[in-house]
Amino acid sequence: MATATKGEFLYEGKAKQIYATNNPNQVIIHYKDDATAFNAEKKGSVQDKGVLNNEITTLIFNYLESQGIKTHFIEKLNEREQLCEKVTILPLEVIVRNVIAGSMAKRLDIEEGTKPSNTIFEICYKRDDLGDPLINDDHAVALGAATYEELEHMYKVTAKINDLLKEHFLKEDIILVDFKIEFGKNSEGEIVLADEISPDTCRFWDKNTMKKLDKDRFRRDLGDVREAYVEILSRLTK
Amino acid sequence: MATATKGEFLYEGKAKQIYATNNPNQVIIHYKDDATAFNAEKKGSVQDKGVLNNEITTLIFNYLESQGIKTHFIEKLNEREQLCEKVTILPLEVIVRNVIAGSMAKRLDIEEGTKPSNTIFEICYKRDDLGDPLINDDHAVALGAATYEELEHMYKVTAKINDLLKEHFLKEDIILVDFKIEFGKNSEGEIVLADEISPDTCRFWDKNTMKKLDKDRFRRDLGDVREAYVEILSRLTK
Ligand SMILES: Nc1ncnc2c1ncn2[C@@H]1O[C@H](COP(=O)(O)OP(=O)(O)O)[C@@H](O)[C@H]1O
Ligand SMILES: Nc1ncnc2c1ncn2[C@@H]1O[C@H](COP(=O)(O)OP(=O)(O)O)[C@@H](O)[C@H]1O
Ligand SMILES: [Mg+2]
Ligand SMILES: [Mg+2]
Repeated sequence: MATATKGEFLYEGKAKQIYATNNPNQVIIHYKDDATAFNAEKKGSVQDKGVLNNEITTLIFNYLESQGIKTHFIEKLNEREQLCEKVTILPLEVIVRNVIAGSMAKRLDIEEGTKPSNTIFEICYKRDDLGDPLINDDHAVALGAATYEELEHMYKVTAKINDLLKEHFLKEDIILVDFKIEFGKNSEGEIVLADEISPDTCRFWDKNTMKKLDKDRFRRDLGDVREAYVEILSRLTK
Repeated sequence: MATATKGEFLYEGKAKQIYATNNPNQVIIHYKDDATAFNAEKKGSVQDKGVLNNEITTLIFNYLESQGIKTHFIEKLNEREQLCEKVTILPLEVIVRNVIAGSMAKRLDIEEGTKPSNTIFEICYKRDDLGDPLINDDHAVALGAATYEELEHMYKVTAKINDLLKEHFLKEDIILVDFKIEFGKNSEGEIVLADEISPDTCRFWDKNTMKKLDKDRFRRDLGDVREAYVEILSRLTK
């Protein structure tokens, strides 16, 4: 396989930088150690987070690909970088909740840890300046973020991802409480899973101790942030 | 028709009081002049608002009933009171938006007055202490506020109400920008339209002058609040 040549810096977000490559349909994603929370009101960094999330995302995306999920992921290049299909990210965050926690617990006055009778799917409008507000399908269509058909497709794929990952993590004694994913359109107009899946974008609770093994340790100043990410990686590779 | 006897005061909200009657399946709804906005942060009163909203709601509910919509409305009793079926209100506000205004314009950074390509349906969790947050169907089900089937039914009825009222008001040169309705379950377990439909719960814009003829005159201190409600009533009765 021809190794991609890193080109110009394209843009960056709170956790990753995106670089062009010699192939116009591919980008290099560089994982940083920067950590932010509460819409970047809280800022910091976690040593090696970029290295850990690059590896964790690689393992998860490889697993999902092996189970038939189409993703942007091509290959891991080095400690902090992966080669991916270049996509146009849909301005939506798709969230799945198996257990109530975080913003949903707070907004709706539900105790964190409550298990709802139904799996909860949410979409938020990806706009940092507006605080990524919760929206519904009609809003997404009115905003031009997606069509009803695209939303239907994304919910279907997201439900499958949830089923796969819930089981995958439970085998390692980890409860997949909730997670956020992003989808993008590739050069063929296909909608594929993009961005990352890591302790930055999921809530993971140890099944036996209920210890939080995710970014909530950073958000809530619980300590041992790096150790939690290391723990997730070690369970996925054990 | 036997006239209902007013019984004990049951409870009240920001705009109306509910009284028992000699019939356990019926209540008397008394319309107050109290006006509130921004989740009761702003408080005031509008002279005769209760009289005007009682009459406007009566006209609208009679019209909807004549078009096959099932409502709680039985009859207007006097200037400020109407007899209604007693229902258990579902803790949801169902909102329809034909033109973007108010909270949706603000939350999603869309210019007020924008006409979306699709009609927008929203549900909010009716909880004053939480600020009536926007939710989606999965949240409503998780909260036990309604089942998926009940939501489907409410959206269908709401779409029909919107079609009927849009046309009804347009005949009087009024644009129905948006509105909020509530549904309740009657003693037979049937879900019917309840509460009120008035300038307190709708945005009405004059088609020719774009003048606001609704509670936004109170919310935004535009003056002539009472006059706007009188204007809506007079167009409906002309
Ligand atoms: N395959 C891809 N092609 C192009 N952009 C991508 C791809 N995958 C992710 N992105 C985008 O890269 C940006 C940087 O990621 P990140 O630092 O996580 O941003 P954010 O601050 O929005 O969370 C985000 O806008 C993300 O949506
Ligand atoms: N037919 C009905 N039976 C019982 N309660 C009703 C009926 N119609 C409306 N209500 C309820 O009466 C209460 C008083 O109304 P209102 O003053 O508008 O309250 P709010 O402050 O919630 O807007 C509300 O909780 C409303 O949902
Ligand atoms: Mg991100
Ligand atoms: Mg009310």
